[in-house]
Amino acid sequence: MIPQPLENLIKQLSKLPGLGPRSAQRVALDLVSNGEQLYNLQQSLIEVAGQVTNCESCGNIGLASPCHICTDTSRDNQTICVVEGVDDLWALERSGSFKGFYHVLGGVVSALDGVGPDDLRIPALVQRVKEGDIQEVILALGASVDGQTTAHLLARRIKGLNKNVEVTMLAKGIPVGAEVDYLDDGTLALALEGRKQF
Amino acid sequence: MIPQPLENLIKQLSKLPGLGPRSAQRVALDLVSNGEQLYNLQQSLIEVAGQVTNCESCGNIGLASPCHICTDTSRDNQTICVVEGVDDLWALERSGSFKGFYHVLGGVVSALDGVGPDDLRIPALVQRVKEGDIQEVILALGASVDGQTTAHLLARRIKGLNKNVEVTMLAKGIPVGAEVDYLDDGTLALALEGRKQF
Repeated sequence: MIPQPLENLIKQLSKLPGLGPRSAQRVALDLVSNGEQLYNLQQSLIEVAGQVTNCESCGNIGLASPCHICTDTSRDNQTICVVEGVDDLWALERSGSFKGFYHVLGGVVSALDGVGPDDLRIPALVQRVKEGDIQEVILALGASVDGQTTAHLLARRIKGLNKNVEVTMLAKGIPVGAEVDYLDDGTLALALEGRKQF
Repeated sequence: MIPQPLENLIKQLSKLPGLGPRSAQRVALDLVSNGEQLYNLQQSLIEVAGQVTNCESCGNIGLASPCHICTDTSRDNQTICVVEGVDDLWALERSGSFKGFYHVLGGVVSALDGVGPDDLRIPALVQRVKEGDIQEVILALGASVDGQTTAHLLARRIKGLNKNVEVTMLAKGIPVGAEVDYLDDGTLALALEGRKQF
């Protein structure tokens, strides 16, 4: 009933994160009804496929490898910030509060999803710490169980190098703008524990 | 910070229905990390752009115009079922309970969205009813205010042709599988009003 090319497009779209069969159908019909939009999306995909590449050093996505961050000599080359994905790197860059280099792991260790340490870019990180003049590794991983497990694993590996490198992690506490009575018990406990002089 | 081609792709994706800037970014990163998926989506778009077309007669989407439904001589050519969009046509075809022809309006009249009768495929419908041997027009439009407004407008136009064509609409009542205590007052009232002999 649905034409085969359209059926294929719906199948491809429904593989994308956040899109199910119903929303993929809606997107496909929207694209068919707007030829210009369909063409623009197609061109964007071709451009991305042809121009965008992974940075061999930090794992960032950019137009060249090494990327524009890794080649920026004005940045602090004694600090590496370890993030789970490229979107985390973008979020940190948006905040403008970090001026060192990054290392994208490409995920976190997860028993449920079957992701082991070997699936992540850990050896490359260890190599960078071993060879570079690194003073501090900031583990900017999520506060989930998997994120924290990965952080512990990384801290042990980096400390095992005996290179006198400081390993730190993001502060845990009440997010800016949050109400105290809406906070979960775990966050409240950590915010209290980590309280600071006024 | 985000490479330009990727930024463009995120912009194109966020124009699609149901995708905001955040989910578009997630989809774009997923596509970049999986070259095969990116290529397949791109090919699907090219195929759809090249092969899929609108049926001039009923407004359905297919590989040819007139579409495979309009050219199916085994169907009942005395009945036209008017639907809002192609997805509604697909839903009716899936149900297998209708064997006549369709007419896709391409929307419903909506004051809020600025859609007037002239933006819909109403003249083509009137033409089909005028020229064909149509006995019944089923208005299978949604039970929303806009859907019902459009239904009233269509009924008036078709009856104005003085061709002795029956105009019907979908029965309103309790959906299969629904619990009575979860139904809204409007549906309950209509279900009571339209009650049938057991």
